[in-house]
Amino acid sequence: VERLTFDERAAFSPADPRLQRVAIAPLTASLQAGSSIQAAIFRLATGGRIARHPATVPQILAVLEGTGRVSGADGTFEPIAAGQAVTWAQGEEHETESDDGMTVLILEAEGLVPFHGRGSS
Amino acid sequence: VERLTFDERAAFSPADPRLQRVAIAPLTASLQAGSSIQAAIFRLATGGRIARHPATVPQILAVLEGTGRVSGADGTFEPIAAGQAVTWAQGEEHETESDDGMTVLILEAEGLVPFHGRGSS
Repeated sequence: VERLTFDERAAFSPADPRLQRVAIAPLTASLQAGSSIQAAIFRLATGGRIARHPATVPQILAVLEGTGRVSGADGTFEPIAAGQAVTWAQGEEHETESDDGMTVLILEAEGLVPFHGRGSS
Repeated sequence: VERLTFDERAAFSPADPRLQRVAIAPLTASLQAGSSIQAAIFRLATGGRIARHPATVPQILAVLEGTGRVSGADGTFEPIAAGQAVTWAQGEEHETESDDGMTVLILEAEGLVPFHGRGSS
């Protein structure tokens, strides 16, 4: 057993121009550091934004708290709220914003297959 | 972009004797179904329990809501609450319980490396 914390106090804001008013608390080491999966809690403050960029590997964004909007390859924003998730394919351009604040889990891994219902997995 | 939901209505209770008063909402397909990572939201109701069993691959349990207790190889339970996570090594026996209810994210993957602080990843 090892323990770690991912609460607000554990979060930090990396010097990444794509991240605006976003704090991150990692659960895993990064893909670059050799973990097979990269998982982190992202906290978007009011007006927070993860600017448009391509997914390096298949990705899931799951909203834990709050509301926001996301877009994929076609650039159309759709609202998203707690209890809802979105998946982006490898290479897909995507973007995430929140007016009122939003806490999300982001999972990234080669070979990640999203859940498609009880009959299919 | 694909969407999925993982809220309480999307959760189901598998016929698994290790799961007592536990409902699961998957984010990914299972390892057996070919996903490289298995991620799901587990909702333990009051008195809920995931009975002692070994981790098949490295695992992280991150508490999103509520409180409970977890044990690892030595069988000693320690309290855990929202914002805290625990990692179990491949093969490590472990157990999770909650008196008052707890919602957790469970991540399982070969090659998963837990986060060990900003200097180390």
